[in-house]
Amino acid sequence: MTDHSPKPRINGERLLADLSRLARIGATAAGGVSRPAYGDLDITARTAVREMMRAAGLTIRVDTAGNTFGRRAGRGSDGPPIVIGSHTDTVPDGGRFDGALGVMAALEVARTIAEREVPMRHPLEVVDFQNEEGGLIGSKIVAGLFTDDALKLVTPSGRTIGNGIELLGGDPARLDEARLVPGSIAGYLELHIEQGRVLERAGADIGVVEGLVGIRYWEVTFDGIASHAGTTPMADRHDALLAAGRFVDAVHATVTSIPGRQVGTVGRLRVFPGGANVIPGKVVLTLELRDLDPAVIDALFARIEPEGRRIANATGTKVTFEATLANAPSPTDGRVRDAVAHAARDLGLRPHAMVSGAGHDAQNMAGIGPSGMLFVPSVNGISHSPAELTEDHDIVNGANALLGAVLRMDATL
Amino acid sequence: MTDHSPKPRINGERLLADLSRLARIGATAAGGVSRPAYGDLDITARTAVREMMRAAGLTIRVDTAGNTFGRRAGRGSDGPPIVIGSHTDTVPDGGRFDGALGVMAALEVARTIAEREVPMRHPLEVVDFQNEEGGLIGSKIVAGLFTDDALKLVTPSGRTIGNGIELLGGDPARLDEARLVPGSIAGYLELHIEQGRVLERAGADIGVVEGLVGIRYWEVTFDGIASHAGTTPMADRHDALLAAGRFVDAVHATVTSIPGRQVGTVGRLRVFPGGANVIPGKVVLTLELRDLDPAVIDALFARIEPEGRRIANATGTKVTFEATLANAPSPTDGRVRDAVAHAARDLGLRPHAMVSGAGHDAQNMAGIGPSGMLFVPSVNGISHSPAELTEDHDIVNGANALLGAVLRMDATL
Repeated sequence: MTDHSPKPRINGERLLADLSRLARIGATAAGGVSRPAYGDLDITARTAVREMMRAAGLTIRVDTAGNTFGRRAGRGSDGPPIVIGSHTDTVPDGGRFDGALGVMAALEVARTIAEREVPMRHPLEVVDFQNEEGGLIGSKIVAGLFTDDALKLVTPSGRTIGNGIELLGGDPARLDEARLVPGSIAGYLELHIEQGRVLERAGADIGVVEGLVGIRYWEVTFDGIASHAGTTPMADRHDALLAAGRFVDAVHATVTSIPGRQVGTVGRLRVFPGGANVIPGKVVLTLELRDLDPAVIDALFARIEPEGRRIANATGTKVTFEATLANAPSPTDGRVRDAVAHAARDLGLRPHAMVSGAGHDAQNMAGIGPSGMLFVPSVNGISHSPAELTEDHDIVNGANALLGAVLRMDATL
Repeated sequence: MTDHSPKPRINGERLLADLSRLARIGATAAGGVSRPAYGDLDITARTAVREMMRAAGLTIRVDTAGNTFGRRAGRGSDGPPIVIGSHTDTVPDGGRFDGALGVMAALEVARTIAEREVPMRHPLEVVDFQNEEGGLIGSKIVAGLFTDDALKLVTPSGRTIGNGIELLGGDPARLDEARLVPGSIAGYLELHIEQGRVLERAGADIGVVEGLVGIRYWEVTFDGIASHAGTTPMADRHDALLAAGRFVDAVHATVTSIPGRQVGTVGRLRVFPGGANVIPGKVVLTLELRDLDPAVIDALFARIEPEGRRIANATGTKVTFEATLANAPSPTDGRVRDAVAHAARDLGLRPHAMVSGAGHDAQNMAGIGPSGMLFVPSVNGISHSPAELTEDHDIVNGANALLGAVLRMDATL
């Protein structure tokens, strides 16, 4: 049976109003939002989302991890659901769209499907994952990738992860019950702001995410000798900051020496003892490399590490690299990508295949079922900032593409 | 009249015992001394020094700045004195010799002159300046270079300078009375550890200080744009730390590009926001340049500043330089230098002309009368550290050279 009725569209005004309403919870003077996970404002926002889900006729479930799911039954109501959503926590002094857009758009999609009585084979679930910004915690628990040791970590809210989960209605002692086994979902799709300028530069409307980059982190330490800046001749110095300065430049030179989308960043750097009149005796810095291809990351590090040793030799210092974290790259599912690209074209929008340089809950969901993401443009690529902005028409386009992709996934998955 | 008696020598064992006794006040587990100015241990040490001066027959005077003077009358007892000494405060977790050696050696010289009944034309004063490490405060007040605004500054002891002066027996409301007008001293001579490796490398025993270097400080800020390390392609970055890293290297390259004893140091560097996954949006660092010739400092900065702008342009950042402090170079008096060099040779020691890269109370005393300094070797050049060490024989040599130079100054000044 072919459906000849006009393709359904979401209600753009309602979605924008919902986004504005959510942005008032934790609104900052600078025009952004500050709702660190497990803080009072995060809890207030999650409660508000739950009420909006309930008002949309969804059946609420808070899992033992503290994630919120709102479910609409499908025709075969017990089959694996299509899950759509994102998160509503923010970084401290963050923006209005990172995460919130994905949850509000998913809610609007569910509402539209209910109102138009669009038939779906699969149940549809809207998810609001907890503590995405602090390490994808909610989705990690769902995917069975969380280790209980982390329950005692203190988060920017001042609360531990364990205490936070309790406050969200979860149960840190029964996290296993939140786990979704592979095959238990029909698919996962997350709408998110791009947080970069790729779409803007490409003149594209919808980013079809090919995969989420892998990330490797190192803590790099240069050990020199602290001494008096006035009495130590230049030739006698073992200046850890001179070494670190050259290393920062070398990381940039190495990462940009080959074509590709790989990135390398030194984001944190600390100088000891740090007196204006003391030659730095020690510098500790972070090195982060990201690419969709782990071989590219390995190849870059294979050049950066000896470069660091060469710099250490030249400056009379010693360098050590400590690998602190590795996230494997996470390709998206081809069927989900196709659904997004088709949905965009159906709407007359221009899709653009791209990688996600940031981590998202979708990478954890990829282990449970066919998963993917779609991006909408971020003005000037700014995010994690009060200046974070996605234009109204891009918000509406993104939500309509989400709706179209969900219906296509419902037919194909 | 020529004195054919053997030249007097100080009592080395007594001096070493005095130094050990003083080092017990504020001794640290690491083998150093921690007596930050105005702290309880600083006050205890200064009281002990006063008692030692009194026991040596000196007449004690604590000026309104809180400096301690111990005086021995000369043959013409009201004439301007020869002043010798240093300071007994230390940096937090400092060493046993920085400052303490100069005060204990001066005391030993005064004691030797008294015991041997060596006739002197001038009165001799032993001084223990207060808060040298925090900016030469005691000698600054004596030289009329202190501004009362600084009385409210909080020091590492936790006490303000004003409160500290009160606790030392001074009177912050009457600092003018501590001032010594030009001509009111016959000369000033300070024995100090070198705090560098110049003497060690030269195989010399006594450093004859030609002058104390000038110092200029700048606070240098690179402003870029903080953004997401995963979603911002390399070409779109405005990385303030990349700029700062290149700048640190450029400072080193510029300072070492010309022959000479000039030094340049970036000792403090702070990265904002400082997250491992955030491209640095701002870096604030200190630039310090030192040389005996202010024209050399000016010439270096005239090359470093445009280099900073070039780096800022190349990295899409903005750089600003704020001059925060300038200490003019302070040459020593030729007659004092001669006295030190002769005294060293008389003792069969090898003198070596050198500059002081560090600031000392002598630079403030230079405005009041003919002033100078002599250095003894620091093992491995280490200072401001528990590992600070000057060998016993160098301590004794230094004190004997101080004695010889004082007697020569007494004859020639």
